[in-house]
Amino acid sequence: MNTADLLTITSDDLAITRLGDRTVDTPLKELLGERQETMHYVTETDRVLLDVVQGIAKKRGVDVAGLPAFNPGGPREKLFFEPTEVTAGIVTCGGLCPGLNNVIRGLVLHLGRAYGVRKVLGFRNGFKGLADGSEPLQLTEQAVADIQNRGGTILGTSRGNQDPSIGVDTLVRLGVNILFVIGGDGSLRGAQKLADEARRRGERIAVVGIPKTIDNDIPWIDRSFGFQTALSQAAESIRAAHVEAFSTENGVGLVKLMGRHSGFIACHATLASHDVDFTLIPEVPFDIDVFLSCLKKRVEHQGHAVVVVAEGAGQEHFPASDQTDASGNARLNDIGGLLKKRIVDWFGDTPLSVRYVDPGYEIRSVPANAYDAVYCTRLAQAATHAGMAGFTSMVVGQWHGRMVHLPISLATGSRNVVDPYGQLWMNVLETTGQPKKMS
Amino acid sequence: MNTADLLTITSDDLAITRLGDRTVDTPLKELLGERQETMHYVTETDRVLLDVVQGIAKKRGVDVAGLPAFNPGGPREKLFFEPTEVTAGIVTCGGLCPGLNNVIRGLVLHLGRAYGVRKVLGFRNGFKGLADGSEPLQLTEQAVADIQNRGGTILGTSRGNQDPSIGVDTLVRLGVNILFVIGGDGSLRGAQKLADEARRRGERIAVVGIPKTIDNDIPWIDRSFGFQTALSQAAESIRAAHVEAFSTENGVGLVKLMGRHSGFIACHATLASHDVDFTLIPEVPFDIDVFLSCLKKRVEHQGHAVVVVAEGAGQEHFPASDQTDASGNARLNDIGGLLKKRIVDWFGDTPLSVRYVDPGYEIRSVPANAYDAVYCTRLAQAATHAGMAGFTSMVVGQWHGRMVHLPISLATGSRNVVDPYGQLWMNVLETTGQPKKMS
Amino acid sequence: MNTADLLTITSDDLAITRLGDRTVDTPLKELLGERQETMHYVTETDRVLLDVVQGIAKKRGVDVAGLPAFNPGGPREKLFFEPTEVTAGIVTCGGLCPGLNNVIRGLVLHLGRAYGVRKVLGFRNGFKGLADGSEPLQLTEQAVADIQNRGGTILGTSRGNQDPSIGVDTLVRLGVNILFVIGGDGSLRGAQKLADEARRRGERIAVVGIPKTIDNDIPWIDRSFGFQTALSQAAESIRAAHVEAFSTENGVGLVKLMGRHSGFIACHATLASHDVDFTLIPEVPFDIDVFLSCLKKRVEHQGHAVVVVAEGAGQEHFPASDQTDASGNARLNDIGGLLKKRIVDWFGDTPLSVRYVDPGYEIRSVPANAYDAVYCTRLAQAATHAGMAGFTSMVVGQWHGRMVHLPISLATGSRNVVDPYGQLWMNVLETTGQPKKMS
Amino acid sequence: MNTADLLTITSDDLAITRLGDRTVDTPLKELLGERQETMHYVTETDRVLLDVVQGIAKKRGVDVAGLPAFNPGGPREKLFFEPTEVTAGIVTCGGLCPGLNNVIRGLVLHLGRAYGVRKVLGFRNGFKGLADGSEPLQLTEQAVADIQNRGGTILGTSRGNQDPSIGVDTLVRLGVNILFVIGGDGSLRGAQKLADEARRRGERIAVVGIPKTIDNDIPWIDRSFGFQTALSQAAESIRAAHVEAFSTENGVGLVKLMGRHSGFIACHATLASHDVDFTLIPEVPFDIDVFLSCLKKRVEHQGHAVVVVAEGAGQEHFPASDQTDASGNARLNDIGGLLKKRIVDWFGDTPLSVRYVDPGYEIRSVPANAYDAVYCTRLAQAATHAGMAGFTSMVVGQWHGRMVHLPISLATGSRNVVDPYGQLWMNVLETTGQPKKMS
Repeated sequence: MNTADLLTITSDDLAITRLGDRTVDTPLKELLGERQETMHYVTETDRVLLDVVQGIAKKRGVDVAGLPAFNPGGPREKLFFEPTEVTAGIVTCGGLCPGLNNVIRGLVLHLGRAYGVRKVLGFRNGFKGLADGSEPLQLTEQAVADIQNRGGTILGTSRGNQDPSIGVDTLVRLGVNILFVIGGDGSLRGAQKLADEARRRGERIAVVGIPKTIDNDIPWIDRSFGFQTALSQAAESIRAAHVEAFSTENGVGLVKLMGRHSGFIACHATLASHDVDFTLIPEVPFDIDVFLSCLKKRVEHQGHAVVVVAEGAGQEHFPASDQTDASGNARLNDIGGLLKKRIVDWFGDTPLSVRYVDPGYEIRSVPANAYDAVYCTRLAQAATHAGMAGFTSMVVGQWHGRMVHLPISLATGSRNVVDPYGQLWMNVLETTGQPKKMS
Repeated sequence: MNTADLLTITSDDLAITRLGDRTVDTPLKELLGERQETMHYVTETDRVLLDVVQGIAKKRGVDVAGLPAFNPGGPREKLFFEPTEVTAGIVTCGGLCPGLNNVIRGLVLHLGRAYGVRKVLGFRNGFKGLADGSEPLQLTEQAVADIQNRGGTILGTSRGNQDPSIGVDTLVRLGVNILFVIGGDGSLRGAQKLADEARRRGERIAVVGIPKTIDNDIPWIDRSFGFQTALSQAAESIRAAHVEAFSTENGVGLVKLMGRHSGFIACHATLASHDVDFTLIPEVPFDIDVFLSCLKKRVEHQGHAVVVVAEGAGQEHFPASDQTDASGNARLNDIGGLLKKRIVDWFGDTPLSVRYVDPGYEIRSVPANAYDAVYCTRLAQAATHAGMAGFTSMVVGQWHGRMVHLPISLATGSRNVVDPYGQLWMNVLETTGQPKKMS
Repeated sequence: MNTADLLTITSDDLAITRLGDRTVDTPLKELLGERQETMHYVTETDRVLLDVVQGIAKKRGVDVAGLPAFNPGGPREKLFFEPTEVTAGIVTCGGLCPGLNNVIRGLVLHLGRAYGVRKVLGFRNGFKGLADGSEPLQLTEQAVADIQNRGGTILGTSRGNQDPSIGVDTLVRLGVNILFVIGGDGSLRGAQKLADEARRRGERIAVVGIPKTIDNDIPWIDRSFGFQTALSQAAESIRAAHVEAFSTENGVGLVKLMGRHSGFIACHATLASHDVDFTLIPEVPFDIDVFLSCLKKRVEHQGHAVVVVAEGAGQEHFPASDQTDASGNARLNDIGGLLKKRIVDWFGDTPLSVRYVDPGYEIRSVPANAYDAVYCTRLAQAATHAGMAGFTSMVVGQWHGRMVHLPISLATGSRNVVDPYGQLWMNVLETTGQPKKMS
Repeated sequence: MNTADLLTITSDDLAITRLGDRTVDTPLKELLGERQETMHYVTETDRVLLDVVQGIAKKRGVDVAGLPAFNPGGPREKLFFEPTEVTAGIVTCGGLCPGLNNVIRGLVLHLGRAYGVRKVLGFRNGFKGLADGSEPLQLTEQAVADIQNRGGTILGTSRGNQDPSIGVDTLVRLGVNILFVIGGDGSLRGAQKLADEARRRGERIAVVGIPKTIDNDIPWIDRSFGFQTALSQAAESIRAAHVEAFSTENGVGLVKLMGRHSGFIACHATLASHDVDFTLIPEVPFDIDVFLSCLKKRVEHQGHAVVVVAEGAGQEHFPASDQTDASGNARLNDIGGLLKKRIVDWFGDTPLSVRYVDPGYEIRSVPANAYDAVYCTRLAQAATHAGMAGFTSMVVGQWHGRMVHLPISLATGSRNVVDPYGQLWMNVLETTGQPKKMS
């Protein structure tokens, strides 16, 4: 879409023809509930704005200064760093996610080819490599050729943060001007601490984050890298569970997917496969007995059923605990195992085959697909532009299709979750046909 | 993102830290050109608006009534048609595109499961099936089970339109209330004619389009279905050409991709593979001799090179012609064949291996991947909602992540093209390192 | 190879040149052991016979009547059944295995297209469908179009046998002349009982088996269908475990693969991936402490390690039990779980990340790859030929590349296992570098 | 199968039950022809020998010395070379084939890990690298990590041979004791010349070939590496052509596959897909008009058809030529293009859509699948054993499942072709239903 088009189109051009007034009550109410419960229904006056770029709104004579807006990503005409003097560093943190090697490769190629930066260091094993005195890898073009075809990260990774003071010592010692941190919530907070410490000391070190979460739960970002690849792989596991369930008498396929706090993978994989009968996510509590009763009915009616459960769903059915892992995340209880057991108990003497699939590592370790490869390339390019321009304490992301900059504080302050009254969850309910409420 | 978050966030929350003022000229100018030539550079005052929903802007007290806005997709509380009385029809037109069967299946399942519509007819071989008296398929749940795993369309397809008068006769005879037309530019114009004819006769028939173009060139739509799948497959062909070129002395891999008027597949596939040295698209004219000269330099320097050319690129190098195919599209000249010949001539006695790959049918015929499967499901659900609500002469699409309705006239009035001064093309230049101008 | 070539080639044509006498002791002895322990070493006088078909040996004037030989598969000039009068039945039994639908489709197409048999019945849910009075599926060409792209079996399956008397009643009632049984050890014994019962009653019903085992442990058969596909999928899981192990500090990837009594999948997947450090199979007992000690050394040396364990390995480390599943197979103890726990204990305070992958259902449920698709087609054709010729109580299989017939008694009388002194296991030891003995 | 089993089984154990005498003439005669024309029918007395190893036959008391037999592959107890003094060289020649990098990696890992050979040199760009003084690559474990995931060859390749005298100069200068040549017919003849020249000079250089041909036409070898992978990829192209043909009115999918002199890929891909209507191979001449007439009938009857043609088929329809490529192979005429044109002409005004697919490079450049990965590993291990034992002027291969050694002269003296009266072609006829004779 050219800017010219955005400036000349009018509301009349966008008007839609209707056959006549609508007078029939929708049967979806049974599935989706009444309007007061959900924003999913569309009213006569709802509209989707055409523009997202402030400048364009201004050119149309509409003052949108009162609306919040992002700093856009992209190259600047003037840089903060002299490219020939830059030493860049890269570190990957936390759990694996498809696309890590694509981002690393994208950074190295873009720094070198577009800006002429020749020295890029890769720290080993997450933030540990900034603290333990280990030798960083020299990331040349040669060193990153073809790494996008492997899953995982050639730099290694670890969970947990390290003393920011030692980290900045290391960066200063090695002359690093721009540090790219590829990591999740906790690691980005660690990146913020490094930036704070550098500023405190007056060191001109830009810390630029590329947010990583296979759960797609980073707020204010359309989609995190690796999510589409994870989704494809998750759909494969659902396919497997469906084949198994379909091929046996009263077969129940039970698939546990990632999603500690948000059910995005579970929801999208459900829409992708169209063979799921129940999707359980952290955002929508459920009563186990009600669920089991619905499941049994579906099996009786259909001969089999497929259940997808996000790992963070149904935690309310376990005693509270305050155990955490090395990243500081709460340890989740095993909802998949609990459901498997409860299903077997519930069916009692009724013949039943439960096929339980838990594909976590297979999903995390695949190479990025083409979609994510493109996205990782664009994220790496945006991060490079941001670092060269001297932005710091920020992450790059995509908002409504545009590359934007976000403060780390905003990217880590909350989590994106599936809105139980929003479009995605309604699409899931429409697809599975499961009851809107199982509680 | 919950609505609550959209209402409480402020511009302060979105502010980004900078290390200091930017004073260094960017080396990208050589690659991307000066500011006056391109919108790719970002200035201090550019911002990306947070909101795209008009209602939210209003709630923040900003009057955006002056800005054009789409009619949103989604379910309505009141319908136009009584679901139990509805007979729906589906027709697929034009060239193959990944996801056709997903859309068909999505329509059948959503009409049946969500609204209780039991009668869905599938017309055979495009609009021909509306005109030739052939028996339409009865599209039951059973009939569409598993069809998403096959490429192509179970309904068959054809190019070209038919007499709208005969078409409406057929719809009336079969009692069809809602006709879903899955097709491209020309077919959607055919759909418009059917809607016009029905209205002229006073027949209450809703005609709802689902735009189909593997080239991703439908205006006002984020992305057409099947595009991501096509892109993955195109990236495979580039991988093959790169392997061949890399493994031979002075190997040149030449890949012709779809893209009659727009280079979206060529550009995205380039970003996905990161192994392309030259990308040629219809939107950016080039001088063949200049290109050949750059190519030879690259081969001498690197030992091999990969060239991606969209089928519609370089048409200026052929004599004008007014031949068209059955869909009324201009017949394109064979730019791939021309380039192959010219490369061989240009290298003369220099050893050279040109590997020419033309994967058109392989790309069009693959089943949709998970991304497109999700998107097709959502398009089918939005089209169903629109049809049941009595909207007509319109298509469904996604705009900045939201389902919206577009008048057919808008969806067919122009084409989306790659902006030669926009972000995507700049990303391509940054990735290939090819000269900004080869003319 | 034409027969003519087989008849004219001589031993002289097959002689190999050597540079001179061999006098150096091989360093492999440390890995593979002495000659007296293993048949893996080749001696001066060992030779591999060129011919495997008795008829050819005879034509060369060598009397090999004293050597046992198989009845060959393939079409006969004279049939036992009049094709137009034949009703065929198909039943699939036991656990899923890639290729079931290919075999079903191959039988239906070959019976119909080559012999003109028009009535083929598909019994539901294994032998249950022969006993419970349920209506069999009518397997037309239409009904089996595209089923090869789905995993599982469209007929459904179950474990366990049924009363052969009721089974023959059902066959007689439906007029079935040829029953194709696709199943494993136990199911083939069930097929034998059906054949015995039919013979006892004087019913002319041919019972032809197509042996199914994902473990590839059917004796006297080169390779069971689905094995190559399973292997590809298993290699994917090893890849995932390797990526995870490689990307973390002291990462140990632990993959449990199928193989109740034989380690064929584990061994072949090891050779396919070349990234495995230890392969544990039922045929080679090991001492857990010795294994753990070797594993720790490998991790210390290499930074990570990958372990593949067949599900039937190490059963000697559990108390004896006589529990069985519905197929009558002994219930295996969870060696994967045990090893995971023991590894964690053994490493104690040493940092360690164990990634345990158990991809059973994903492996069983994938569609057959091209290799297995070809093989399933050929098995189905051979089984059809055998049934039309009136052979019964037998199975089809491949022996040194030729289709042959085996008595069911032979195919079920024992199991094929990995020879701990044979070529395959030696290849594994050479590939992993693990000690020949860990006991 | 343990040797013990081979020694104790008797012909009685292998006897098959029949329901009774066969009296019905087979309807296959129409398809396959009479017995006198074909060896495909099996007679009462045909048998497949159980044993293929001479030693085993002897132990059973049968003298098979009169039957020709291969020298077996595998490790010897005594070596010719002292491992610590060995420098090995590897060269890859001719067209790409899946698995080249697997063989390279297998050689390097096996030489190093099993025998302790530390110096392995990789010559660049085929035999050119032995002649042009270019620096060979140092092939360390590090250098070959992950190369199996890429297609092509990391060493590069070229066609044509070089002066053997210069080649041996290079080998002597670099101290190479064992040269592994991975290449086809012509390249293996080049390897023979190197071995001859070395022997003439008294240099102790073992030349060991690993035969490479994507066409699977090496005589006396079960299957060449990469063939299964090529077949999978070819089946994908057939799938694409079938989808295109099926989705359009009177669609004809035409797929050109590799196979200069032999139709193995065409035949196996036909069996894998089961959607092919006509398979045309070099071994079976056809009359174009007869073929066109059969094709039109099939299209009229079925609505579409799929044709697979090997590149070397139908060369009799072109004027004789003696042009050759750099490898000395005769230049083939474009049978695919001819057929496409003739089909269009033949159909005249009948509506027709021909979809022509020519996937050569895509097939050659994919990474090896798991089957070929295993096979390449085993070939590399066998070649290593052969080289260390001092065998020369030979290649490794598999014969009836056993690794064997073949003299280069035998591996290059003729070609394996599809027997027009053998099992494979009969399976193809049974699958396509095409007439046995189209001439």
